[in-house]
Amino acid sequence: MDIVNGGVCAAKGFTANGVHCGIRRNRTKKDLALIVSEVPATTSAVYTTNLVKGAPIKLNQKHLENHTAQAIICNSGNANTCNANGMEIAEEMAELVHKYTKIKKEDVVVASTGVIGQPLDITPIADNMEKLVKGLGDRSKDAAHAIMTTDTELKEIALSFNIGGKTCHIGGIAKGSGMIHPNMATMLVFITSDVSISPEMLDKALKSDIKETFNMLSIDGDTSTNDMVVVMANGLAGNETITGEGEAFNEFAKALNTVNIWLCRKIAADGEGASKLLECNVSGADSLDIAKKAAKSVICSSLLKAAMFGADANWGRVLCAIGYCGADIDVSKIAVSFKSSKGEILVCANGAGVDFSEEKAKEILLENEIEINVRLGCGSFSSTAWGCDLTYDYVKINGDYRT
Amino acid sequence: MDIVNGGVCAAKGFTANGVHCGIRRNRTKKDLALIVSEVPATTSAVYTTNLVKGAPIKLNQKHLENHTAQAIICNSGNANTCNANGMEIAEEMAELVHKYTKIKKEDVVVASTGVIGQPLDITPIADNMEKLVKGLGDRSKDAAHAIMTTDTELKEIALSFNIGGKTCHIGGIAKGSGMIHPNMATMLVFITSDVSISPEMLDKALKSDIKETFNMLSIDGDTSTNDMVVVMANGLAGNETITGEGEAFNEFAKALNTVNIWLCRKIAADGEGASKLLECNVSGADSLDIAKKAAKSVICSSLLKAAMFGADANWGRVLCAIGYCGADIDVSKIAVSFKSSKGEILVCANGAGVDFSEEKAKEILLENEIEINVRLGCGSFSSTAWGCDLTYDYVKINGDYRT
Repeated sequence: MDIVNGGVCAAKGFTANGVHCGIRRNRTKKDLALIVSEVPATTSAVYTTNLVKGAPIKLNQKHLENHTAQAIICNSGNANTCNANGMEIAEEMAELVHKYTKIKKEDVVVASTGVIGQPLDITPIADNMEKLVKGLGDRSKDAAHAIMTTDTELKEIALSFNIGGKTCHIGGIAKGSGMIHPNMATMLVFITSDVSISPEMLDKALKSDIKETFNMLSIDGDTSTNDMVVVMANGLAGNETITGEGEAFNEFAKALNTVNIWLCRKIAADGEGASKLLECNVSGADSLDIAKKAAKSVICSSLLKAAMFGADANWGRVLCAIGYCGADIDVSKIAVSFKSSKGEILVCANGAGVDFSEEKAKEILLENEIEINVRLGCGSFSSTAWGCDLTYDYVKINGDYRT
Repeated sequence: MDIVNGGVCAAKGFTANGVHCGIRRNRTKKDLALIVSEVPATTSAVYTTNLVKGAPIKLNQKHLENHTAQAIICNSGNANTCNANGMEIAEEMAELVHKYTKIKKEDVVVASTGVIGQPLDITPIADNMEKLVKGLGDRSKDAAHAIMTTDTELKEIALSFNIGGKTCHIGGIAKGSGMIHPNMATMLVFITSDVSISPEMLDKALKSDIKETFNMLSIDGDTSTNDMVVVMANGLAGNETITGEGEAFNEFAKALNTVNIWLCRKIAADGEGASKLLECNVSGADSLDIAKKAAKSVICSSLLKAAMFGADANWGRVLCAIGYCGADIDVSKIAVSFKSSKGEILVCANGAGVDFSEEKAKEILLENEIEINVRLGCGSFSSTAWGCDLTYDYVKINGDYRT
């Protein structure tokens, strides 16, 4: 498996583009993205679990009933959610893609991200659709840029891998900065692949993978209304179609997992206002469920997140978060260490503090990628969750987002 | 029912004191409190649900098996939690109270609040116990001051009320600023009363009341390891002992509820770094459970809390929080308004935005007590939750708490 260039255009037959259409006032910020496959692609998607769902989500649920799509259109700057005419606008976005590309309207996935509850004007999208389509090419970065909201970094990756002697590709772009929390929801992730795979197996690969990746990611505990992970696989790699478990499926699942973990880490590191990526590894649990609950609880603790911002080795907050995670855990067996590129330091053993060098701990915690390693000392299950620190900038960004 | 002076000393037979003993370095900050009843009092308590429990909690569970106590000792600056010798130290604190007051060791409630995982030195407590006991008197404020941690305001209230012609009193002090979240845990609250009531009815009054008061309070979603609500009722008012439901019980329950709501609001308004008290009133729910889930979810949303800090009428975040609260709610019926002393403004009806004056909304939201009123438009149940905004200062306080 190799990292390659090209993002969502690395896979054969995919082109993309991103333009500024005017939903956002800032003319240097692209706000409309399009990803197109030469041929209809087997497509699988997972959506937010929030009961308040953006209009595009509802449209996609209809469009993807047959597990087929050929294009994704996405605007940023407006979520098209909680608007009386939301469905109408989402339908018009799909219709516009059809008009300029001849792709069937039902094969268009629609996504919107931004402010909730402000009507989305279709005019700037309609006015710029011709330009968007004409510019389709090897422009994954433009699409990745156009879907960003409060993101500060573009998130794009692609891999090549081998299935039965055929070179296959998978690539993804993502946005997502605040309003990100376990149980999906959480962000926009568009993944393209030229692998040939049945709808059932693509669905299986995606749904089992997100349990260990995007559902283990939290920025601020808020589950968004609009977000989704979409995987399109157009089959142009020419591999024998994956229709069941086995080596080929495992290869694809591994590539998908690599892309998803990479995007998770990028999203966590670029969480709203974040100065640090936090990774909590829980091991020694009696069950996977316990490991996950503990890891997520630590990553979601506002108190711990603030302590990490301050490079403060306040391990009591790790124990506190484990204590209220809802799993039955013997706290007297817990060991905790903090780790970064500067080394690893044990701060708690058998549920109580151990002597450690505050100076060394500070040096470790001043880095921008921190591992919080928790050993529960019971069973053999483990799990990882990702998040970020809580900073002044998170408050700043969210204290005045609309204005 | 009248508000009276005296805090925990308003009820007959109660004295209190607070001194600086030296657990904290700052010599102007009191850090050791004592509350004493002339006679043993019927006592009821609720504790944190966190699996990581401070040593004092475990001791109290033992001491209060007989529902009797005569003193509460409490230090701030150190939680005596996750320490190998924690139980020993908690026992010594009770023993010291016994030594200087002759109150039975088993009738002493022990509480500690502060940093987790640092051994608590008994020396400063032992050295100052004589002074603490000698100073016992009408010093509720000194005790209230001594239990504060990151609190910026002393929290004390007392009421007088009438049961069967006898004047009764109830008073309380509280601390609690961060690590506060629904499901108890949450803070230290010490309530004293001279009412005469059976242990069963006192327990009933407390446990049913906290469901609507302290369990509807969240500062930052973190459930603390040490906190508790203790109610002592020593019977010196001379009323006929309350042993069942009826008018007398209702009077007492009403007084307890008034004290608890008052303290809840004070704790929320003084949440770590808070600049605003938030109160979310949910009405029109199909069940009490739904109303509570929705109200708590709104109050706990980091995004909404940050928006309130910025006086930004971002009602989409209210809907978003209701959407992920876990209750089955028809979002298309929801109406939301914001209210303060400057007026009330409707911002969402039928689950979608309505035209409103941003200027008026800003004026309302710039006040320091904000009501978020949510009408679900279904049934007849309602609930209230309290919290505060998320500010730069929350991050500052928690980014560098230990050092």
